[in-house]
Amino acid sequence: MARNKLALTLPRRDPPVVHAMNFCSDNVTGACPEVMEALLALNRGSAMPYGGDECTAQVQRLFAEIFEHEVAVFPVATGSAANALALSVLTPPYGAIYCHPEAHINLDECGAPELFTGGAKLVGIPGEQGRIDWGNLKAALERAGFGVVHHVQPACLSLTQATEAGTLYSLEQLGSLADLAHHFGLKVHMDGARFANALVGLGCTPAEMTWKAGVDVLSFGATKNGAWAAEAVVFFHPNQVGDFEFRRKRSGHLLSKMRFLSAQLQAYLQDGVWLRNARHANAMAQQLAQGLGSLPGAKLVYPTEANEVFIELPEPVLQALEGAGFRFYRWLGEGHHLIRLVTAFNTLPADVERFCQVAQQASRLQ
Amino acid sequence: MARNKLALTLPRRDPPVVHAMNFCSDNVTGACPEVMEALLALNRGSAMPYGGDECTAQVQRLFAEIFEHEVAVFPVATGSAANALALSVLTPPYGAIYCHPEAHINLDECGAPELFTGGAKLVGIPGEQGRIDWGNLKAALERAGFGVVHHVQPACLSLTQATEAGTLYSLEQLGSLADLAHHFGLKVHMDGARFANALVGLGCTPAEMTWKAGVDVLSFGATKNGAWAAEAVVFFHPNQVGDFEFRRKRSGHLLSKMRFLSAQLQAYLQDGVWLRNARHANAMAQQLAQGLGSLPGAKLVYPTEANEVFIELPEPVLQALEGAGFRFYRWLGEGHHLIRLVTAFNTLPADVERFCQVAQQASRLQ
Amino acid sequence: MARNKLALTLPRRDPPVVHAMNFCSDNVTGACPEVMEALLALNRGSAMPYGGDECTAQVQRLFAEIFEHEVAVFPVATGSAANALALSVLTPPYGAIYCHPEAHINLDECGAPELFTGGAKLVGIPGEQGRIDWGNLKAALERAGFGVVHHVQPACLSLTQATEAGTLYSLEQLGSLADLAHHFGLKVHMDGARFANALVGLGCTPAEMTWKAGVDVLSFGATKNGAWAAEAVVFFHPNQVGDFEFRRKRSGHLLSKMRFLSAQLQAYLQDGVWLRNARHANAMAQQLAQGLGSLPGAKLVYPTEANEVFIELPEPVLQALEGAGFRFYRWLGEGHHLIRLVTAFNTLPADVERFCQVAQQASRLQ
Amino acid sequence: MARNKLALTLPRRDPPVVHAMNFCSDNVTGACPEVMEALLALNRGSAMPYGGDECTAQVQRLFAEIFEHEVAVFPVATGSAANALALSVLTPPYGAIYCHPEAHINLDECGAPELFTGGAKLVGIPGEQGRIDWGNLKAALERAGFGVVHHVQPACLSLTQATEAGTLYSLEQLGSLADLAHHFGLKVHMDGARFANALVGLGCTPAEMTWKAGVDVLSFGATKNGAWAAEAVVFFHPNQVGDFEFRRKRSGHLLSKMRFLSAQLQAYLQDGVWLRNARHANAMAQQLAQGLGSLPGAKLVYPTEANEVFIELPEPVLQALEGAGFRFYRWLGEGHHLIRLVTAFNTLPADVERFCQVAQQASRLQ
Repeated sequence: MARNKLALTLPRRDPPVVHAMNFCSDNVTGACPEVMEALLALNRGSAMPYGGDECTAQVQRLFAEIFEHEVAVFPVATGSAANALALSVLTPPYGAIYCHPEAHINLDECGAPELFTGGAKLVGIPGEQGRIDWGNLKAALERAGFGVVHHVQPACLSLTQATEAGTLYSLEQLGSLADLAHHFGLKVHMDGARFANALVGLGCTPAEMTWKAGVDVLSFGATKNGAWAAEAVVFFHPNQVGDFEFRRKRSGHLLSKMRFLSAQLQAYLQDGVWLRNARHANAMAQQLAQGLGSLPGAKLVYPTEANEVFIELPEPVLQALEGAGFRFYRWLGEGHHLIRLVTAFNTLPADVERFCQVAQQASRLQ
Repeated sequence: MARNKLALTLPRRDPPVVHAMNFCSDNVTGACPEVMEALLALNRGSAMPYGGDECTAQVQRLFAEIFEHEVAVFPVATGSAANALALSVLTPPYGAIYCHPEAHINLDECGAPELFTGGAKLVGIPGEQGRIDWGNLKAALERAGFGVVHHVQPACLSLTQATEAGTLYSLEQLGSLADLAHHFGLKVHMDGARFANALVGLGCTPAEMTWKAGVDVLSFGATKNGAWAAEAVVFFHPNQVGDFEFRRKRSGHLLSKMRFLSAQLQAYLQDGVWLRNARHANAMAQQLAQGLGSLPGAKLVYPTEANEVFIELPEPVLQALEGAGFRFYRWLGEGHHLIRLVTAFNTLPADVERFCQVAQQASRLQ
Repeated sequence: MARNKLALTLPRRDPPVVHAMNFCSDNVTGACPEVMEALLALNRGSAMPYGGDECTAQVQRLFAEIFEHEVAVFPVATGSAANALALSVLTPPYGAIYCHPEAHINLDECGAPELFTGGAKLVGIPGEQGRIDWGNLKAALERAGFGVVHHVQPACLSLTQATEAGTLYSLEQLGSLADLAHHFGLKVHMDGARFANALVGLGCTPAEMTWKAGVDVLSFGATKNGAWAAEAVVFFHPNQVGDFEFRRKRSGHLLSKMRFLSAQLQAYLQDGVWLRNARHANAMAQQLAQGLGSLPGAKLVYPTEANEVFIELPEPVLQALEGAGFRFYRWLGEGHHLIRLVTAFNTLPADVERFCQVAQQASRLQ
Repeated sequence: MARNKLALTLPRRDPPVVHAMNFCSDNVTGACPEVMEALLALNRGSAMPYGGDECTAQVQRLFAEIFEHEVAVFPVATGSAANALALSVLTPPYGAIYCHPEAHINLDECGAPELFTGGAKLVGIPGEQGRIDWGNLKAALERAGFGVVHHVQPACLSLTQATEAGTLYSLEQLGSLADLAHHFGLKVHMDGARFANALVGLGCTPAEMTWKAGVDVLSFGATKNGAWAAEAVVFFHPNQVGDFEFRRKRSGHLLSKMRFLSAQLQAYLQDGVWLRNARHANAMAQQLAQGLGSLPGAKLVYPTEANEVFIELPEPVLQALEGAGFRFYRWLGEGHHLIRLVTAFNTLPADVERFCQVAQQASRLQ
């Protein structure tokens, strides 16, 4: 719900922000150097369109290596497209998609899953710290009315890793939720808009956090962590791809010059660029959490497990930070003292230090 | 949720039930004599199709009289069609419809509103005894993100009268919920599948329970209370009709021999037939509630305000009733001891008496 | 296109027509006596809703007998619903449905197939006298781009029998078109809104005109030929039923008191009622064609093979007929001299005779 | 239809093409230097997402200047998205979109307009050389059945400039078609995937080819003529924008790092880059047409008015060209001797000369 509020308190159009010091989101960044160079390098010659190029073929192989599994990979330009298209092949128009009430697909995509599935229903399963509660999911599925024509039919479980609260599902939690879903015949989708941040947060392998835990289809995000506009839908069971390619084309998400999407993913995944970027972002978040968490009146609302910090700070502190030129969103909460700070691959340690200093000073003056 | 469970515990195909003693629903009935005669009388001669007949024109005037207001009335054959079509002209594809989590449109129409609106989102607003809680609705609307492109846009409030719990909104409750919705720019829809039962339950006028309370569009139900298959979408503000007629045709709900739908509604509304039918059904429900409520181990889960009784009874009592040939649904609940009893215009007082006797005897034997 | 014009030249609301003499359509009629009696007989007792009744089960068996084949039968209230629902299980959202440009599904259902399929494309294949031309269909399928992501994918061929021109496909024509469609992997749907009129026109068996000719799914019409509002979707290959039941419910076309739909179909099919009705209607059409075809200036635009006569008559003759109180539609054509005359199960021979007399007299006076 | 065939004769995956000599399409190219530099320059600092950046604001102003008119501009990544989103705000689900049968929206977008409009119908209006015939459109609109509930309602005329045949509508032709559409209450959309090629072909101003000719909404293409992936929907009447922004977000086409779309458009439009690119492409096409048109057995199927050449050549000539390493599509036609040659902003004059030489030599050897 928070996201709604922020949208309400922020103007639709913002003044240009040429400096850094912007903790609003990890999508305020550009591309990392490696991605940039790859795009430059690729801009010569010609290539067949719509994915008929060599670079796109290489990306398929690269994902297969990194995930240690056969995969079918489909690059798209946005995360909403990745999620909605993935869900559209897993869910019939009369299907139900189970997700956390705060999930991006439920709250922040203006109904994209409903459009792409032809009107499926998203069923919110609450749980603490942004995680779906296993018991709640079990209870919902037991009541769902499988095979009964009056009721939408459970088709898919969608897990967000890292969650909208900046927390992580453990491998055990992922596995038990996926097992439950599979037991009831559902497919398991993962919204990995911040996949790399979660991966380095857990310190596991891509395989462990996906197919080994029971994930069938992954929305793999790169945009927030170093690409310009590149995500990928990754099927771990190619027989589940179904009519994905027709749905992607039909929704206007098949880019003619596909190779420039693929090139971003390739550069992002090569030589550990994506992991390096994510480790930096997470470290910056940790630094913020530690520097702010102990201030008088400060309260970390969620544990900081990836690259997002949700913290309540006294109003004077917030005003001092805003006065110093820092950008961040005030979340819904008592008197709007809850803010979200998002760090990225290019967050400057100096900005983080300064942020903490300003907060500490303002805190002493209270 | 209950409805889901019942679906699970009932076989898809039932043995024929030629006798009465069936309390499963008010849709196990046929038509009442007045409706029947009207259909016979109309079956002579010919008439222009698709509503171009005199009977359909008369029905318009009849609704206007009864509701003391200008109206635009569109007969359809099912309640799901009435609801989904009504909502489809009030809600854009990226819109949100606010309703009780247990509402028929949310739980029992297999996603019909989603289909007809082009993928709108139904947002469940909880409240006790089947009624939406005013405070919960206010909080949801304040968080909704009006005008923010990331979020579905609140478009409509749908109230069910009588509720799925067999309870009623008071006129005050209807008015304050409608005012709240209108304050936020939403339209107000009423699912009146059991409109007549609610009306005689409150003892008010049709006008008081609809447009005077702020209802913009009504799904007026007749099927459960004496018609064969006849409902009507009633617009109290003809300028809100918009493209309803195209949507009705496009969904296959414009009957060519429309006059036979209209004739049912006409006979139903004339000479107080509909009110007489509803009074009888409600009285039968009261008799059941009184006869069973005081039994040891019995618990009325919801107050009986229309023609539905939700009651928990000891297992031996339930088995005795089933053994005696009574039909009813076991609802979800501790050990499935919660049952729903629905009475109708043609429920036999003798059946009700016998039902109570059997229950009392079985109760004594415990 | 004709239908469009008629719509334009007719007022939306018509004066009541209590007498007969109405040749506008076969949907200006009521129900035939046998159907009426069945409805009365069924109106006693109670029955489980949504098709869980004995009558609906019997109708399944009755269709199986009459079509000499295993079938899955689903009653609905309108022909548009039957067509659009049938097509929705045969065609994906990115699919193509091949039909005659004048087909009812393409011209007269306000886009119902597009709604129910989630946006499939109807591809018009022209041909003379309302029949799809085999060569045109072959050429279109050869160009269709099977498996190519840029193009909608051919999924279904829809044949209208009797056609919108009142003509019939021969069994050979049906067979060769169905073979062609199957060769390309398409399913074959038949729009049988006037199935009985076509059947007696060809003098073949229901089996010969459907599954033996390659029809996979049939929209079986009863409304125009003696029912009030009863059609049925008939699958000849139950494994193709797919999710039909969810789609029917989701579209509001699952009637709670289903037995009253089923009862109409049962009475209609028993004791040859449907064939008797259709033979009468066709005979009346033949009488009109013969009585009018030889008049000076008269021109039968299509051969009269079922219960529709398309004929051009001199303006004075048309005015004389209208002056005499006959109702019919003026179709598009040179100076609107083309009219359509539709006969029905209850058309009075006396009306037909008088119609011809008036025309002949007016013709002499020219 | 041609496009279908090509799809059939080309393998889904192509070997990499590092060299030029590729005349398959103008989407086999990369970005022009000016666009590339703009992207590099923009990759510093941070900016608010979703269009809340300065660059996107500047693009609005730039379009207004160039089109000499108030505009509302919405960047998207693909032409299919631009077309389908533009049409979705002009057309209701039960609406009809009139276009040439060969239009990209009708043949090559896998039903994207149907998805985004919620199931509107595309009505093909034939005409020679890829242009809609005025008389055919008039006849279709006169038959359309405005206001009649049985028929889809005409909502929009879509014109493709340059056409799929590589030809151009004259300003007079555009104006008279737009006038006709407006007379019937339709809105006018232009698919300008090759807008710049058409503009320099006609030698008129952007204003003359759009709003001055009656175009209401333009799909402005940049990808084929020098951008990587950048198109824009341009509304000339901001009051017609309606809910475009919700539909763009809902379809996953609102890029978070929007500025990188905007930057491409900005660089493309500044300093006449787009016109220079288009002039070169058109000149290369002229050179091909002149060099090949006079060969024995050669036949220019359509006049070369933009950057596409449709020509029939003898089989030995085609084989010689293919043998020499040139890439192009064989179109449908007698014995597949019809090919399409597409030139681009970066087509090498040397490649064009060599292409003509090889053809001439092979021609002499016959």
